[in-house]
Amino acid sequence: MASKWVYLFSEVDEAEAYAGDWDGVRGLLGGKGANLADMTRLGVPVPPGFTVTTEACNAYLEAGERFPDGLWEQLQAALVAVERDTGKKFGDPDNPLLVSCRSGAKFSMPGMMDTILDIGLNDVVAEGMIRLTDNARFVWDAYRRLVQMFGSVVLDVPDEVFEAVISGRRRQTGVTSDADLEAEDWQRITHKFKEIVRTYTGEEFPQEPMEQLRMATEAVFKSWNGKRAVDYRNAANIAHDLGTAVNIVTMVFGNMGDSSATGVAMSRNASDGRNEIEGDYLVNAQGEDVVAGIRQTQPISDLATGMPEIYAEFSDIAKRLEQHYRNMQDMEFTVERGKLWILQTRNGKRTAQAEVRIAAEMVEEGLITKEEAVSRVSPGQVDFFLHPQLDPEARKGATLLATGLNVSPGAAVGAVAFDADTAERWAKEDKRKVIMVRPETKPDDVHGMLAAQGVVTSRGGRTSHAALVARQFGKPAVVGVAEIEIDLEAREMHVEGGLVIKEGEFISIDGTLGEVYQGKLPTVVPDMNDPYLTKVLAWADEIRRLGVRANADYPRDAERARAYGAQGLGLVRTEHMFFETERLPLVQQMIMARNVTERVEALDQLLPLQRSDFAGLFRAMESLPVIIRLIDPPLHEFLPSHDELVSDLADLKLRLQHADNMAALDELLEQITTKQRFLERVVALREENPMLGTRGVRLGILIPELTQMQVRAIFEAACECKKDGVDVRPEVMIPLTTHVNELRVQQSSLENVARRVMEEQGVQVEYMFGTMIEIPRAALTADEMAKVAQFFSFGTNDLTQTTLGISRDDAESGFLVQYAKRGILPDNPFATIDENGVGKLVRMAVELGRSSRANLEIGICGEHGGDPRTIDFCHRTGLDYVSCSPFRVPIARLAAAHAALKHRE
Amino acid sequence: MASKWVYLFSEVDEAEAYAGDWDGVRGLLGGKGANLADMTRLGVPVPPGFTVTTEACNAYLEAGERFPDGLWEQLQAALVAVERDTGKKFGDPDNPLLVSCRSGAKFSMPGMMDTILDIGLNDVVAEGMIRLTDNARFVWDAYRRLVQMFGSVVLDVPDEVFEAVISGRRRQTGVTSDADLEAEDWQRITHKFKEIVRTYTGEEFPQEPMEQLRMATEAVFKSWNGKRAVDYRNAANIAHDLGTAVNIVTMVFGNMGDSSATGVAMSRNASDGRNEIEGDYLVNAQGEDVVAGIRQTQPISDLATGMPEIYAEFSDIAKRLEQHYRNMQDMEFTVERGKLWILQTRNGKRTAQAEVRIAAEMVEEGLITKEEAVSRVSPGQVDFFLHPQLDPEARKGATLLATGLNVSPGAAVGAVAFDADTAERWAKEDKRKVIMVRPETKPDDVHGMLAAQGVVTSRGGRTSHAALVARQFGKPAVVGVAEIEIDLEAREMHVEGGLVIKEGEFISIDGTLGEVYQGKLPTVVPDMNDPYLTKVLAWADEIRRLGVRANADYPRDAERARAYGAQGLGLVRTEHMFFETERLPLVQQMIMARNVTERVEALDQLLPLQRSDFAGLFRAMESLPVIIRLIDPPLHEFLPSHDELVSDLADLKLRLQHADNMAALDELLEQITTKQRFLERVVALREENPMLGTRGVRLGILIPELTQMQVRAIFEAACECKKDGVDVRPEVMIPLTTHVNELRVQQSSLENVARRVMEEQGVQVEYMFGTMIEIPRAALTADEMAKVAQFFSFGTNDLTQTTLGISRDDAESGFLVQYAKRGILPDNPFATIDENGVGKLVRMAVELGRSSRANLEIGICGEHGGDPRTIDFCHRTGLDYVSCSPFRVPIARLAAAHAALKHRE
Repeated sequence: MASKWVYLFSEVDEAEAYAGDWDGVRGLLGGKGANLADMTRLGVPVPPGFTVTTEACNAYLEAGERFPDGLWEQLQAALVAVERDTGKKFGDPDNPLLVSCRSGAKFSMPGMMDTILDIGLNDVVAEGMIRLTDNARFVWDAYRRLVQMFGSVVLDVPDEVFEAVISGRRRQTGVTSDADLEAEDWQRITHKFKEIVRTYTGEEFPQEPMEQLRMATEAVFKSWNGKRAVDYRNAANIAHDLGTAVNIVTMVFGNMGDSSATGVAMSRNASDGRNEIEGDYLVNAQGEDVVAGIRQTQPISDLATGMPEIYAEFSDIAKRLEQHYRNMQDMEFTVERGKLWILQTRNGKRTAQAEVRIAAEMVEEGLITKEEAVSRVSPGQVDFFLHPQLDPEARKGATLLATGLNVSPGAAVGAVAFDADTAERWAKEDKRKVIMVRPETKPDDVHGMLAAQGVVTSRGGRTSHAALVARQFGKPAVVGVAEIEIDLEAREMHVEGGLVIKEGEFISIDGTLGEVYQGKLPTVVPDMNDPYLTKVLAWADEIRRLGVRANADYPRDAERARAYGAQGLGLVRTEHMFFETERLPLVQQMIMARNVTERVEALDQLLPLQRSDFAGLFRAMESLPVIIRLIDPPLHEFLPSHDELVSDLADLKLRLQHADNMAALDELLEQITTKQRFLERVVALREENPMLGTRGVRLGILIPELTQMQVRAIFEAACECKKDGVDVRPEVMIPLTTHVNELRVQQSSLENVARRVMEEQGVQVEYMFGTMIEIPRAALTADEMAKVAQFFSFGTNDLTQTTLGISRDDAESGFLVQYAKRGILPDNPFATIDENGVGKLVRMAVELGRSSRANLEIGICGEHGGDPRTIDFCHRTGLDYVSCSPFRVPIARLAAAHAALKHRE
Repeated sequence: MASKWVYLFSEVDEAEAYAGDWDGVRGLLGGKGANLADMTRLGVPVPPGFTVTTEACNAYLEAGERFPDGLWEQLQAALVAVERDTGKKFGDPDNPLLVSCRSGAKFSMPGMMDTILDIGLNDVVAEGMIRLTDNARFVWDAYRRLVQMFGSVVLDVPDEVFEAVISGRRRQTGVTSDADLEAEDWQRITHKFKEIVRTYTGEEFPQEPMEQLRMATEAVFKSWNGKRAVDYRNAANIAHDLGTAVNIVTMVFGNMGDSSATGVAMSRNASDGRNEIEGDYLVNAQGEDVVAGIRQTQPISDLATGMPEIYAEFSDIAKRLEQHYRNMQDMEFTVERGKLWILQTRNGKRTAQAEVRIAAEMVEEGLITKEEAVSRVSPGQVDFFLHPQLDPEARKGATLLATGLNVSPGAAVGAVAFDADTAERWAKEDKRKVIMVRPETKPDDVHGMLAAQGVVTSRGGRTSHAALVARQFGKPAVVGVAEIEIDLEAREMHVEGGLVIKEGEFISIDGTLGEVYQGKLPTVVPDMNDPYLTKVLAWADEIRRLGVRANADYPRDAERARAYGAQGLGLVRTEHMFFETERLPLVQQMIMARNVTERVEALDQLLPLQRSDFAGLFRAMESLPVIIRLIDPPLHEFLPSHDELVSDLADLKLRLQHADNMAALDELLEQITTKQRFLERVVALREENPMLGTRGVRLGILIPELTQMQVRAIFEAACECKKDGVDVRPEVMIPLTTHVNELRVQQSSLENVARRVMEEQGVQVEYMFGTMIEIPRAALTADEMAKVAQFFSFGTNDLTQTTLGISRDDAESGFLVQYAKRGILPDNPFATIDENGVGKLVRMAVELGRSSRANLEIGICGEHGGDPRTIDFCHRTGLDYVSCSPFRVPIARLAAAHAALKHRE
C-alpha cells in the first residue's frame, strides 16, 4: 500500500492516529498544518484545505527532487474534496476555486519559507472572476500577485523587477499608494509581469492551474534547503532533517470591499504580556499587506467599533485557541464580505517581559502548572531583565533623533551599519558594537540582526519581520521610524530637522520606549522588581535542588546579590580590597618589606581595614554562608608594571639633568630611589608564567604573616558581628592547592589563628576551612584533599586554563579566535564548561571528595557558575551550589530549576 | 615464660628457629651478630661470645631505658657459658676474661654505633694480668683504652681530653708515635684518665666488671637513637624501628708482640673488583689502629711472607665466607700469638666498577644467577660509569697539588670547604659545587660529604670512614693525602712546596687515580666500554619488558645513544636544529614574513637543511623507529629578547647622535629599522604565559606551511634513505594537543603532504603519526585522541607543569625550594613522576588510549624517562618504552630490568 502523503484538515484524527501524539502530528503536518487541522476540529472557521506532509518533502528531496509514488494522485483527490466542501472548482472560470500554497515546518520559521497566493488564476479564470465579482481591480490585483509571487519564488525572477514595474506605474499615474492604482493599472501591470516571466525564463507563465499547483508545491519543498532556511535553522538550533509540510488552502479575500478585512493579532500583548488582544488590521486588503508593513495598519481595537460582531467572534475564538494550546496565540484572519476566517494560529513570539507575565498569569488562570511556567521562561529571557537600559538622567540632555514602535525592549548603543553584511563584519572582525539600520528587514538580513546590538527600521509594524526576529533573539529594536529616511547610496540617514547621521556614527536606541538618540548614551541595568519575574523565580526556587550563591567583594554587591536571591557568597576575592586607593600603599609596603618586622608593620595597618571589609559582608549576608578566599594573585600585580617603571625612571633621570636647584634635585633623587627599589622588587618577582607561579596557597606558605592577618581579620570581624547579635557563617577558602600537604600546612596554621582570636574575643563562631579546586592535581587527588578541607569550590576559570593548557589572556584574542572560526573547539571553554575534559575532572573530584567526607560541601565559583549549560552539568554532577556574579543570580536560579525539571526521574 | 633476649654464637640454630629465616636472624641478631653466629656454625675461628638481640634493645628503649625482665639474668648466664668455653673468668685477676661490647644493627652503619674494648679490666685485674703476661705496657695500654672508650662513649667525656693527655705525654717524653711510649707512660696515662673520669662525672671509674658490662650494653642501646645514627639512617633510608643488637665477644689481642697482628681485608678488590684479597694490617697492634688510619698500615699481601700459614688460613676462610654469603666479604681479623681469629665479616662496600665486575664474575663462577647480578647493580652504579673524569689532555698542564689513596673513583671539581656545615651550606643555599677537605672524617661529617662533589682527607686509609662513605654514596674521594696540611683556624691548606689554598678556592680531584689539582679542570665522560658492565646490561636486556629509546637531536647523539643500547629515538626536537647559526636567520625571516609568499620563501630555504638533518638521523638509527616532534616552542624564542632589543635600540640611537658621516648614518639607520621591526614582532608575540600559549600544534594550525615543510623534509629524507637501501621508520609526533580536533585538522593536512612526497619520489615508507600527551585534557580524552593518533608519547615535563599548575622555570629556584625544605612535596615532581597526580593521568590515558586502539604504541619522553622510580612506574603502567637522554640509556636498561624482576609474578 502506498504511504499517505496528504491529509485534509478534516482528517486530523487520522493524522493523529498515524503520528501517535501531538508532537508527532506537528512533525508530520508541520506546525501550521497541525494547527489548521486542530482548528478545524475545534470548529473554528478555517477555509477548507489540506496538508502535504513533511515526510513527502523528505521523500521528494531524498529522491533527487521527485514526487514519491502516490503523492500527486492523493493531492488531486484532496483537491476534489476541497472543491466539494467549497462548492467551487479549480480552474473553472464560472465558479473558480483559488488556493494558497504555504510552507509549514515543525518549528515556526517566520518569513523563511515561501508562500504563493491565488493559485488557480489564469487569463481565462481572471475574466470569469471579473464577470462573477464585477470587481476587475480586485481580480487583476490578485492575478498580478500570483504572477509576482510565482515568478519570484518558483521561477527565480528577482522581486525588485516586479516592484519596479509597480512603482513605475505609480509615478506614471502620479499616485503615491498602491491603493490608488485602478483596475486598468493592475491589468497593465499583470501583462507586464507575464512578459517579464517570459523574458527571464524563456517560457510563458503557466496557465494550467494544476501545473501551477505542482510547481508551487515543489518550490516549497526545495526552499527547505535554501540558504536562508539553512542559516535560520543553524542560528535557531533547529534540526535540518525535519522537512517542511505544504499547506494548500482555499483562498479567502480581505480585499473584496469594505466588508472585507485582513489582519494579524496576538491573544495577549506581545511586548508586555497584558491579557488583551493586540494586533493590526487593514480593511479591504490582502494579508501580506499587513505583514509587509507597507500600508499604515489600524490597531485591532478599532475592529470592535468597525465590525463589532466580527470582533466578538474573533475574541471568542482567540480565547478558545489559548485554552486549547495553553499558550498565547498569534493568529492571521481574513474577513471576506462579512465572514470571518482564521487562516493560521501559532504560539506567539513575545518579549522577555511578556513571556514572564504570560507564564505567571496563566498559572493563576489555572491554564498551566508552575513547572510549565518555569520551563517556558528561558535563562536568556531572565537575562533580558538585567539588560542595560538607557540611563534616564543622561537621556534628558541627549539629542532625540526620532521615535518609532517599541517592539523589542532594552537599550543598545552602537555604530550605524546600513546592511547586514557590514553589521556582521564590523561586529565580528572589528569587535565593534553595531546598530543595524534598514528601511525594513527581510529573512536575508537575519545574520546582521544577530550580530548587531539592536535594530532600527524606518518602516514596518509590531508584527513586521524586524519586530518578530528582534523579539525572538532579544535584540532591542525600534521599527516604523517614519521620521528617518535612509539613503543607502550615500550611506547616510536623514532625520527630520536636517540632521544627517553617516554610517559608522554612533546612535543609542531604547527598545522599551521606541526612541532613537544621537551618540553614545550611558546605560543602566534595571532593578529586578518585576512582580511576574519574582513569582516565576520563586517557583523556580521551589523546583531547583542546586543552591545559588554570588561572587561579591563589597557589601553593596553582597546586598544586591541577596536582593537577587543569592543564598550566600560563594567567592569573596580579598585581594580586590587591596587595590583600593587607601590600601594599595600599605600592600606595597608589605611587599617591599626588607624583613619580617617591616612586613608585620604594614600588615598591622591593613588588619583593621580588612576587618571592616569582612564585617560589612557578614552583616549584609546575615545567617548566610560567606566564603572568603585568601589572597590569590602574584604579588607583582600590586606593584607598578616593569615597563612603566623603566620608562618613569628614564624620564626622572632626564629631568635630573635639568634640575636647577638643590631642592628639586633632592626631590628627584628620592623619587628615583623609590622607583629603583620598586623596579628591583618587580624584577625579582618576575615570572615566566605567572599563571603557574607564586600565588594562592604558595604565597600563604612563603609569607605566613599575610594570610594569618587575613584570617585574624575574618575572625575578629565575625566575633564583633556575633557580639552584635548578627548570625555569621564564615568559610575560609585556601586557593590554588596542588598537594594536600600545602593545605595541611596552611590550614593548621590558620586554624590556630582562628582559635586564638575566638579565645581572645570570648566568642565561638561556626566556621569551615576549605579549598578551591582549580589545578588538575587537586581534582585528581580530591580524596586526599577532602580529608583536610571541609568544602570544595571549583575555580573553573583556572582549572580550564591548566586542564587545557591555555592561557586565557593570551588565547582569547589569539589562537582561540581561529579555533572558534574553524570549529576546532565546539564552544568557548571559558564560557561553557568543557564537559569532556574539565568536566571529567570535576566529576572525579566530586566522587573522590565525597568518598573521603560524605558531607563535603561542593560548589563552583568560576565564571561558568552563571552559565545555564554549566549549571545543568553542575546539577547532574551533584554539586551543592553554583556561585556567580550578582547579575547572573536570577538566571542561575532559573537554570537550576530547568536542570531539575529536565533530569527529574 | 620470659622472652629469650640473649643468644650464644653457638646457639645459631635456635636463633634461626626463632626468627624463621636468614633475614629474620639478621633482624634479630643484627648483621654482625648473625654473621658471628654463621661463622661459628661454619667452623671459622671466632672468639666465643654472645649477642643481645635487637628486640632487647627495642624493649629497653620502649620501657624508658630499662632492661626488660630476664635480660640481665640471661646475659649473666651467657657470660658463664663463655667462661666455660674459654676457661677464663670475668673479673678474676688470676685468669681474667676480657670482652668487647659492640653494636650491630640489621644494616651495616659504619662508625655509627659505639664499641668498647677490654671490658673486665680494673685495677686488680690489671695487676693480675701484668703478672700473667709479664707485659705491663700491653696491660696499661689496654686499661687506658677501656677507660678512654668507656669514658667517652658511656660517660660522655669528650674524647679530645683523653687524646690531649696522650699527646702531652708524647711531647713530655719527646717521642712522635704512641708506639714509642713505654709501660710507665701508659700507666700514668691510665691514672690520669681515671682522674678525668672522676672530675667529669663526679664518680670513680667503675671497678666492678659486671657494672662495666651493664653500662656498656645500655650505652650501645642508647646510641641507636643518637643524632648521628638517626642522620645516617635518614640519609641511607634505613627504618628507625629496627633497633641494634649488642655483641659481647671474648677479647683477643693483636698487640701481644710480633706474633700478633690485626687487620681488615676484603675478599676482592673493593675499587676495581678484581678477585684477590685486598686489605691492610698492622703487626702488634689493636684493630682500631688500622681502621683509624693513624699508623701507616701494611698491605695484606705482605702477610703472605710475614705470616704465610696465617695468610693461607685467612685466604681459605675468605673463600668459604664468600661461598657462604655469595658476596664479597669485608673481614676483621686478629692474630693473637700465632692464632688467627675472625672478629667480624660482612658484605663489603665497593665502588660501582667493583660491584659490576664482581656481579659479572660471580655469575661466571656459578655463585649467583644473572637475575641476581642485575639486581645487585644499582642504577646509581651504572650512572657512575657515565660520571665525568678529568680530561686527560687538560691534566697535562695542570698543577698537581698532591696525591693520595684512590678510594672512590670519578672526578670532582669544586670550592674547598673545610667543614661539613660549610660544605652543606654552600652547596644547598649558594648552589656552589664544593669539595670537602678534612684531616679525616667522622660520622658527624656525613651531611657535608653528601652535599659535596667529592672528598679529600689528609689522613686515613682505604678502609677509613671517609673511604667507606664516599664509595657508598658514589662520591669521588682521595684520602690519606699526607702532603697537605690543613689549618682549620686560618681556613687554608698548605701544600708541600709552599702553595696555599684558601677556603673557597677551587680544586679538582681524580678519585680514580688519587690526584688533587689546583683550580677547575675540565672533565670528560668516559666511554661505556667496561666489559663487565656490558655483560650485566646484556642480561638486563634479557630480563626487561620495557623498550628503551633515546632523546637525541643530532646524528652524533643518535649514534652515541645507539652505542649505549637505545632501541630507537623517542624524541627528536626539530626546533633545536633551528637554533644553529646558519639556520636561525632563515627561521627569523620566516617569523618576520609579512605574507605567506615571504614565509614560504624562507621555509623553502630551510627545507633542504631539515632534510639533511633527518637523513642523518635515519641513517644513524637504521631499522629503528625515529620519533620526530614537529616544532614546539613559541616563535618568540627564535627572536632576540625584548629587553635586549630595547637596550640595543637605545644604544643605536645614542650612536646615531654621534655619527659623523653619511655612510655611518645610513648603516645605523638600517640597523635601527631592522631592530625596530624585530621589536614590533616580539611585542606582538609576547604572551602572559608562554607555557600555555601559542606553541605546539597551535603553531601548526596557525602556520600550516611551517609543519608542512617539516613533514616534507622528513619524508623526502626518508625516501632518499630508502632509495639508498636504508630501512627507515619515521614516526611524526604532533605536540601539545588539547582537543582531538586539533589532531584531526593537523594530522590530515600533514598526511596529505607525506603521501604527496612519497608519490613524487615513487617510494613507499612505513610511518606513523601520533601525538604527545602533555596536557591534562589530552590524557583525560585519550580515547578520542587514540582514534586519530597511532602512538602516544607522554611529555611528562609539561604534563607535570600543567597538572600541578607549576611553572618549572620559576618554581625550581623559587617556592619549590621551600617546599622541598619543609617536606611539603615528597619529591621533586620534575625528577620523579608524581604518581598520585600526573601518574593517575598517565594510567587513565593508557587505559583509554588502548580501549580505542589496542595496538597503540605508548612511551614517555620527558626527563622522567631516565629516572629509575619513574621507569618502575612505566613498567607497571604497561608502557611500551621509555625514552631518555643518551647518557641515561644504560641506566634505563638496568632500571627496566629491575622493574621486571620486582614485579615478576
